Amino acid sequence: MTTNQDIKHNGKVPEPTLRRLPWYLSTAKLLKQRGERFVSSTQIAKDINMDASQIAKDLSYVHIAGRTRVGYEVETLIAVLEDFLGFTRLHKAFLFGVGSLGGALLHDSGLQHFGLNIVAGFDVAPRLVGTRLNGIPIFHTDEFELRRMEYGVDIGILTVPIELAQAITDKMVAGGIKAVWNFTPFRIRVPEHIVVQNTSLYAHLAVMFNRLNFNDIQQ
Amino acid sequence: MTTNQDIKHNGKVPEPTLRRLPWYLSTAKLLKQRGERFVSSTQIAKDINMDASQIAKDLSYVHIAGRTRVGYEVETLIAVLEDFLGFTRLHKAFLFGVGSLGGALLHDSGLQHFGLNIVAGFDVAPRLVGTRLNGIPIFHTDEFELRRMEYGVDIGILTVPIELAQAITDKMVAGGIKAVWNFTPFRIRVPEHIVVQNTSLYAHLAVMFNRLNFNDIQQ
Repeated sequence: MTTNQDIKHNGKVPEPTLRRLPWYLSTAKLLKQRGERFVSSTQIAKDINMDASQIAKDLSYVHIAGRTRVGYEVETLIAVLEDFLGFTRLHKAFLFGVGSLGGALLHDSGLQHFGLNIVAGFDVAPRLVGTRLNGIPIFHTDEFELRRMEYGVDIGILTVPIELAQAITDKMVAGGIKAVWNFTPFRIRVPEHIVVQNTSLYAHLAVMFNRLNFNDIQQ
Repeated sequence: MTTNQDIKHNGKVPEPTLRRLPWYLSTAKLLKQRGERFVSSTQIAKDINMDASQIAKDLSYVHIAGRTRVGYEVETLIAVLEDFLGFTRLHKAFLFGVGSLGGALLHDSGLQHFGLNIVAGFDVAPRLVGTRLNGIPIFHTDEFELRRMEYGVDIGILTVPIELAQAITDKMVAGGIKAVWNFTPFRIRVPEHIVVQNTSLYAHLAVMFNRLNFNDIQQ
């Protein structure tokens, strides 16, 4: 009486699926707040205006069994999704470049609720080195390799000026960092086994400005 | 002796192109710092490890003329790209939800260099309303429509908890906001003429965690 259980996936979960799963998690959390016990993909589809078959397909990756007619148990769906997305386990990270955006990210304690624990920042500015921001220590960039062994960190967040982006990335990789979360608008190069996640707020701004002007011209 | 000039595009610039253009801008800025006067798409391609024909195609949208053999003038390329991407003109924005992430964004003065000027924040928390963060005033959410007329703002940044995401979006749209920059992991619904730019840091984290685990299993 379960569905999805015989859909097998080997290998990687597609990136578009990984990007959509947090939507379903949010919807499930809202339903829980409203006291709902069960939810079907059809209901989620209606709530967020998406195709139900796409949702069912995406959810087939997370190995959760839905019951015919009633759908998924809301509490279970939340727990399984949070676990699958890596939000239940804290991943330690270092942040490189405590400037305007880097400092802002150190202030965002919300990242902890989604599995990211920034344990230290690195910079070269004398006014920053040796201080703390939001309780997080800031070390000199030269201390990185030593501190990595101390903290056991796999993730590096890149918020340096573009002219340092590649050099700091190379330093991270040489020091054993396995994933780089790149907030700079620079396209960094890394060896094949290193994970890069690009989040350029400026590229998103460019898309938004362009669409806004386009709509203005059309109207 | 110019290239690209007879390539005509009608209508929208594709989103992938808009997302890649900031890479070329960064590369051009670096070349300028190094004292270079000209750059070809072949050179950019080598610098950032991309296909040269893709770069030439993307740049054909921005109406910049390259000279045969020498390529684009670096200074002109920077100026034309910054203008095309909307970074040279300040776009006023309101931010809704001065929590951890919202507060962090108010602290990020770097957004101004890319054309975004957050002129006010909105929240309902008594400890926030009437105060300033990084010099930016925080008003009660009820004051939004009044303040919109005062400031003439078209962009709303959404950093509220997920249970408020749709209600605040509806309020923005009713009050005349034309573009929503959505940082929540909730999929908001808007009328067709409203621009939505989703930037879910948490969705990006999920992709990064997943790839990191996948690499660990493979090795």
